[in-house]
Amino acid sequence: MSPKITTELLKQLRQVMKSPKYVQEPVQAYIVPSGDAHQSEYIAPCDCRRAFISGFDGSAGTAIVTEQHAAMWTDGRYFLQAAHQMDNNWTLMKMGLKDTPTQEDWLVSVLPEGSKVGVDPFIIPADQWKRMSKALRSAGHDLVPVKENLIDTIWTDCPQRPCKPLITLDLSYTGVSWRDKIVALRSKMAERKVLWFVVTSLDEVAWLFNLRGSDVEYNPVFFAYAVIGMNTIRLFIDGDRMMDPAVREHLQLDSTLEPEFKIQVMPYGSILSELQAVGAGLSPKERVWLSDKASYALTEAIPKAYRYLTPYTPICIAKAVKNPSETEGMRRAHIKDAVALCELFNWLEKEVPKGTVTEIIAADKAEEFRSQQKDFVELSFATISSTGPNGAIIHYKPVPETNRTLSVNEIYLLDSGAQYKDGTTDVTRTMHFGTPSAYEKECFTYVLKGHIAVSAAIFPNGTKGHLLDSFARSALWDCGLDYLHGTGHGVGSFLNVHEGPCGISYKTFADEPLEAGMIVSDEPGYYEDGSFGIRIENVVLVIPAETKYNFKNRGSLTFEPLTLVPIQMKMIDVNLLTHKECNWVNDYHQKCREVIGAELERQGRHEALQWLIRETEPLIRVQ
Amino acid sequence: MSPKITTELLKQLRQVMKSPKYVQEPVQAYIVPSGDAHQSEYIAPCDCRRAFISGFDGSAGTAIVTEQHAAMWTDGRYFLQAAHQMDNNWTLMKMGLKDTPTQEDWLVSVLPEGSKVGVDPFIIPADQWKRMSKALRSAGHDLVPVKENLIDTIWTDCPQRPCKPLITLDLSYTGVSWRDKIVALRSKMAERKVLWFVVTSLDEVAWLFNLRGSDVEYNPVFFAYAVIGMNTIRLFIDGDRMMDPAVREHLQLDSTLEPEFKIQVMPYGSILSELQAVGAGLSPKERVWLSDKASYALTEAIPKAYRYLTPYTPICIAKAVKNPSETEGMRRAHIKDAVALCELFNWLEKEVPKGTVTEIIAADKAEEFRSQQKDFVELSFATISSTGPNGAIIHYKPVPETNRTLSVNEIYLLDSGAQYKDGTTDVTRTMHFGTPSAYEKECFTYVLKGHIAVSAAIFPNGTKGHLLDSFARSALWDCGLDYLHGTGHGVGSFLNVHEGPCGISYKTFADEPLEAGMIVSDEPGYYEDGSFGIRIENVVLVIPAETKYNFKNRGSLTFEPLTLVPIQMKMIDVNLLTHKECNWVNDYHQKCREVIGAELERQGRHEALQWLIRETEPLIRVQ
Repeated sequence: MSPKITTELLKQLRQVMKSPKYVQEPVQAYIVPSGDAHQSEYIAPCDCRRAFISGFDGSAGTAIVTEQHAAMWTDGRYFLQAAHQMDNNWTLMKMGLKDTPTQEDWLVSVLPEGSKVGVDPFIIPADQWKRMSKALRSAGHDLVPVKENLIDTIWTDCPQRPCKPLITLDLSYTGVSWRDKIVALRSKMAERKVLWFVVTSLDEVAWLFNLRGSDVEYNPVFFAYAVIGMNTIRLFIDGDRMMDPAVREHLQLDSTLEPEFKIQVMPYGSILSELQAVGAGLSPKERVWLSDKASYALTEAIPKAYRYLTPYTPICIAKAVKNPSETEGMRRAHIKDAVALCELFNWLEKEVPKGTVTEIIAADKAEEFRSQQKDFVELSFATISSTGPNGAIIHYKPVPETNRTLSVNEIYLLDSGAQYKDGTTDVTRTMHFGTPSAYEKECFTYVLKGHIAVSAAIFPNGTKGHLLDSFARSALWDCGLDYLHGTGHGVGSFLNVHEGPCGISYKTFADEPLEAGMIVSDEPGYYEDGSFGIRIENVVLVIPAETKYNFKNRGSLTFEPLTLVPIQMKMIDVNLLTHKECNWVNDYHQKCREVIGAELERQGRHEALQWLIRETEPLIRVQ
Repeated sequence: MSPKITTELLKQLRQVMKSPKYVQEPVQAYIVPSGDAHQSEYIAPCDCRRAFISGFDGSAGTAIVTEQHAAMWTDGRYFLQAAHQMDNNWTLMKMGLKDTPTQEDWLVSVLPEGSKVGVDPFIIPADQWKRMSKALRSAGHDLVPVKENLIDTIWTDCPQRPCKPLITLDLSYTGVSWRDKIVALRSKMAERKVLWFVVTSLDEVAWLFNLRGSDVEYNPVFFAYAVIGMNTIRLFIDGDRMMDPAVREHLQLDSTLEPEFKIQVMPYGSILSELQAVGAGLSPKERVWLSDKASYALTEAIPKAYRYLTPYTPICIAKAVKNPSETEGMRRAHIKDAVALCELFNWLEKEVPKGTVTEIIAADKAEEFRSQQKDFVELSFATISSTGPNGAIIHYKPVPETNRTLSVNEIYLLDSGAQYKDGTTDVTRTMHFGTPSAYEKECFTYVLKGHIAVSAAIFPNGTKGHLLDSFARSALWDCGLDYLHGTGHGVGSFLNVHEGPCGISYKTFADEPLEAGMIVSDEPGYYEDGSFGIRIENVVLVIPAETKYNFKNRGSLTFEPLTLVPIQMKMIDVNLLTHKECNWVNDYHQKCREVIGAELERQGRHEALQWLIRETEPLIRVQ
């Protein structure tokens, strides 16, 4: 992959940064955050402004351009990718390393006195604005909102904002009607004494109304905002999507409803003015609830005294705890997903030795097998199909320039998942189609020990996920190894593959406690630049745990793997496992054989079934 | 222990809360924080205002008195103690439990509209002020500074502020002269572009000037502030302590010095006016560095634009990383301390069966043995000498009303430590002088497994201590058990037994990364209300670890126990230990035998030596 040449673009950006047409006063620096106006992680092509200006298209990163410099902050998953995709105009700022300056510190170090730093107020979250604005002000600079997005002014062939049809989900998928979700939300609002709630995240809008869309690749969401009052519901959405009879019926737009459940549909672009009107009409003590990650523009629409900001919204928290219908859906989705992967791995075992399977072919084949499954909608993220050194690029996506052929001499890492109408999957398996070296097996086994340590962990109710992160690393740490990413993220139910408010990461402190019904990933890894990557990922459900004692009657929790795909035994150095770990693997494989075996049988996939049976033989630990 | 009767005192406090003599306008609530004007954890008798008003004298707690209510917030260590010490006027707010409101939320729920909440601005840390003030304001109330401390107005027999002689420490103890510490501090100030640094913590003043005092029991500190400029040093201290020739010589008060090392001695009480003068004389871009935990009063003395606030000061961070002189001193102190404890436990083994040893007698005996050691100064905290149910009161201190006799039927927990001129100790051992039950052994062994998991942990350079906390709990969690306190705290070098900026706790996120040379405690426990308490505590030194690999050349760290006191083997269910854990115990005991044995021999303490040899026999694990 060759880097994007950005010399001319940066020149143009620096010109508009000084142009009175776009800025009241010249800005000496311009920040290009990663997200869209909804602080989405995955964004529509029209919102990929940071990728447009820099070439770096990983899912996380912030670009800052000054008159002299262009710098990109990203985290350990993307160090290699960003270095490959950006040209010499750009300096890579490796977040999480000790000597990497924060954006604020860097700005202060490079800016001339009394500078203005511009940013699109619709794109920057309010909490980031606040932090950055404070830091800049204390060093004599100003953060200023630039209404027109400066990237858009130089992006001549910027794609249109998508506006695709909606999918309605009935109770058998969602378990709870949108009306009941509104009732529950209003009761949370009453508890906190707020009169209005502003829904700004796309997945929160989708979850609340039991609707799905396809405006953003991989995430079944649609561009919309909602403002919920105690007696009103306003949905801000564009296009003729609201003309669809199924949608009208689902939202009861044409029914005679109690007024408090009557949905007013308004144009997407009117959110700011409507919110300003709400803000202007508030009486003392009337408060408006927003996420503290809502955009600066929307947050500012509500006068400060009336704002009630929280890191996680009540929708985010309710959405994370899956109800029985959702949990059952997730189970079904994971069974189908495992069937597809058994087919794939069986196929790879036969084809890889022929030397004809590239990373892209393997990824396409994985999608093909998945798409044969019932209720398949799309992939849940860009498939990471990586062999040998590409495996060390943590969020690698094969493209023709980097596409490598799978072989019997290299480790193959496949991190992939899909959206089914009943659930979202995300699974990583690391395989060798020849004979792995002792060192590769050693590293794989440490990663497996970490995976098991989290999966089998028992912990009290109320424990936050970040307290489990070190369990995943302990075996690696003992040998001086580690990995530069978190261990797990929340997973949506036919929604975003990454969602809050829980996760397992040394970086997170504000996560909400784990609760039975939450679903997270468990995905430790080990990566050696230029050689190979290893990751073992299951999606796991938080469930109550039976324990011998019960301190303070708090109750305990543990995890149940929803992902049921064999872990390649030839990669395991069984003598590095304890008895307990060995039993865990055998129990897990037994369950894969039973549950997925039955489904393979039902679907008449006999060859894949034979593969599954072979791959789930019990491990035997030599004493 | 019977509770303090506070009806009359609360009545008096509620009167002064409305008295125009003390408050400009009546306050509807008055906050009585735990600390003194230096945010000390251990405080002088004159500063024990919260204990005076409530009866609860644990080391952590905040009282809030309104016209109708009196409430006390404290953490899990003190739930039982606070419940015992407070009368029915008080409501105990158990921090860390899910349903306990924060102080702010509680105030909002009980206060009439538009209330004023008063607090002494010298006692409340600026960060707490900010948080509370914001929360109250957003609910329509005001936090107001009340200059005269309202507790002091009703505390007729309040003791005098102590003003005891100082101890000077030479280079053999400190490793670095105060001049060199000032030079290093100024270089940190130059790095951050600040012109002034305000030293507000007592232990930071003591460390900076290589002086010690005894104004506060257990903490060898003295009441003082310092303000360090790039060319000036101001020390705010009262009394005739500066007349002591040794102190004058140590600080070179009478020498001809370069002006930038000339110390100006000023009255303790003049800090606010001097700081206000500094604040008034600042030019744009001149900044003053303060801890964000400095008092609201001092922080307000510097106009907001000129403040540079950090959670940890450069002194706090430098102080935490012990230099070789300090480390060697800590080793010596721990050897002496272990000698004293071997004597004590040998004595207890003989005396307890006679039924004549109470908790207080045991604590006194521990102090007696410690005081026989060279350079003993005082205890480093109130000895926790607790048997049976008293052991479940985590920060118990025996008093005549609760004093229990040690017996062969109950678990005995001793958490004690001392200040020696060369170092500070803090050690907990849990013993049984008869035959422990299988359940007691089981619980003890889980705690031991947690202790070992932390002590033997290997982790990358740059790891924060809070990431290790779960290691200490894992064995307990597996059985549904836990403990409601952190796992470790920083330990000073002949300074406070609790110090920042590092620690091992699920509650801390802002801790600084662990570095070689830092010293922390490792003290998991298990407590059963009404029955027993178990804790195993060593003070451990962070040291580099040798590992098989070295990911990204980061290097690894581990711990070396400085505490060398046998862990009672009869409490261990050896079959619950892994081979690795068993070897850890045997290696640890071997080291105790060698190092402490040699010192017992040297001191001619032959009976204690025999006890040590008996207590350090290797454990044998039945396969």
